[in-house]
Amino acid sequence: MKCKMALCQMVTRPDVQDNYDAARNLLAEAARQGADIAILPEIWTTRITPKNCLENAETVGGPAYTLMQAAAKEHNMYIFGGSIPIAHGDKIDNTCFVFDRSGNEIGRYDKCHLYDIDVDGGVSSKESAFVVPGNHQLVVDTEFGKVGVLICYDLRFPSMFLKLAQLGAEMIVLPAAFHIQTGKAHWDFLTRARAVDTQVFFAAVGCATDHEAKFVTYGHSRLVDPWGEVLCEMGEEEGVAVVEIDTDRVKEIRRQLQSLQHQRPELY
Amino acid sequence: MKCKMALCQMVTRPDVQDNYDAARNLLAEAARQGADIAILPEIWTTRITPKNCLENAETVGGPAYTLMQAAAKEHNMYIFGGSIPIAHGDKIDNTCFVFDRSGNEIGRYDKCHLYDIDVDGGVSSKESAFVVPGNHQLVVDTEFGKVGVLICYDLRFPSMFLKLAQLGAEMIVLPAAFHIQTGKAHWDFLTRARAVDTQVFFAAVGCATDHEAKFVTYGHSRLVDPWGEVLCEMGEEEGVAVVEIDTDRVKEIRRQLQSLQHQRPELY
Repeated sequence: MKCKMALCQMVTRPDVQDNYDAARNLLAEAARQGADIAILPEIWTTRITPKNCLENAETVGGPAYTLMQAAAKEHNMYIFGGSIPIAHGDKIDNTCFVFDRSGNEIGRYDKCHLYDIDVDGGVSSKESAFVVPGNHQLVVDTEFGKVGVLICYDLRFPSMFLKLAQLGAEMIVLPAAFHIQTGKAHWDFLTRARAVDTQVFFAAVGCATDHEAKFVTYGHSRLVDPWGEVLCEMGEEEGVAVVEIDTDRVKEIRRQLQSLQHQRPELY
Repeated sequence: MKCKMALCQMVTRPDVQDNYDAARNLLAEAARQGADIAILPEIWTTRITPKNCLENAETVGGPAYTLMQAAAKEHNMYIFGGSIPIAHGDKIDNTCFVFDRSGNEIGRYDKCHLYDIDVDGGVSSKESAFVVPGNHQLVVDTEFGKVGVLICYDLRFPSMFLKLAQLGAEMIVLPAAFHIQTGKAHWDFLTRARAVDTQVFFAAVGCATDHEAKFVTYGHSRLVDPWGEVLCEMGEEEGVAVVEIDTDRVKEIRRQLQSLQHQRPELY
């Protein structure tokens, strides 16, 4: 079955209103190019610092949520809403909402693996200081098959990907805000490996690169097929890339190379 | 701690005696270059077909076993003995024996994931028809830290790698006979991803390429560091590559990026 997926690689601006406008425009552009599914990056409403996320925490039904809901309905398009900060006590959830073509919420994923990292002379982050970790996988049903959702640092946890495949996912969507340092080091081969490990179409959508920002994101959003081929790779710039996939390829690859069936969970 | 690892990328010849000679020579060359640890590829005694493996099945203490044992002792060098076919009823085990510097066997790993594959118009194999699958991981103690062992198709099972890391492995050795088709498609990014998933030094040693063989292997043996950098990559030719690593780098990387500690097994 043919499906047009839109990677909406957005620069996160300092001002929240500007980000609403940018997201609205990118989603409209995705629709103009005929997208069935549009994907935003991680924390697209505000620059990804603890202070910004806490000050700009939203609610279910708040402005970012209703913006995505309205766009899904207006454009008759699924939206995997990147992630937005949702108030949770004195912290936030880092949450991806998924909307169907009618604008109904069909799933919510709270990021499960939090980005605590401290590279010598490089990127440093302690997401667990201000984000509450999620406790559940999400796989949503669409007319194109089941789609799993993960966020950014989850990329480093192959067991989480395999669980989504076990739950029936034939596509996995990963909004991200990968740092340019670890992006250059790891993004290419980790995204391809995850696609092959799970034999899914894997859409990894990062924030566009702003070299002036405090946290410089990597961009390079990409769509990888179940054989590990990179069908589309963006650069650093903001924009929309629409790629048509044929979901039948998942079954073809899984028939030829049955690594999912060859798992031996009793050993792990 | 400094450690010199030798990747012994060997062509598997039609004649078993020729393979004994070749292995002996490669191990001697590894020793000449100061290797602490030498690694042979998968099924190096005979060309990797069901008939060859069954007809040339060996025993513990048989010629290939004693060859490796003697070489380890003579050269005062650890040997991770690729794999050899060991008779097991009317089938074989696909087995890696590990010898210490005195020639004592310190571990045995029987390949756990068997290579049943049927790529349209490409490589086809049904290893489960003639090989008994193993049921245990292997991690051996060396003066350089713990070393896990896997074989070839195991590369496609990230959970198996993570288990070795949980068991304390700081290095993983994978003798292989990857096919040139799937090698070109997947070897690069899967080897790098596994090294980063588990934050180990990862030595993946394949058979050299013989384009006249029925099953054309990929070669391209490589050593990847815990940050995913390829420290050494061989081509298609038979030969030995010796690389000095500093095992302290494992702890450095695991301190900076704590993805092993961030695993959430309750979710998987």
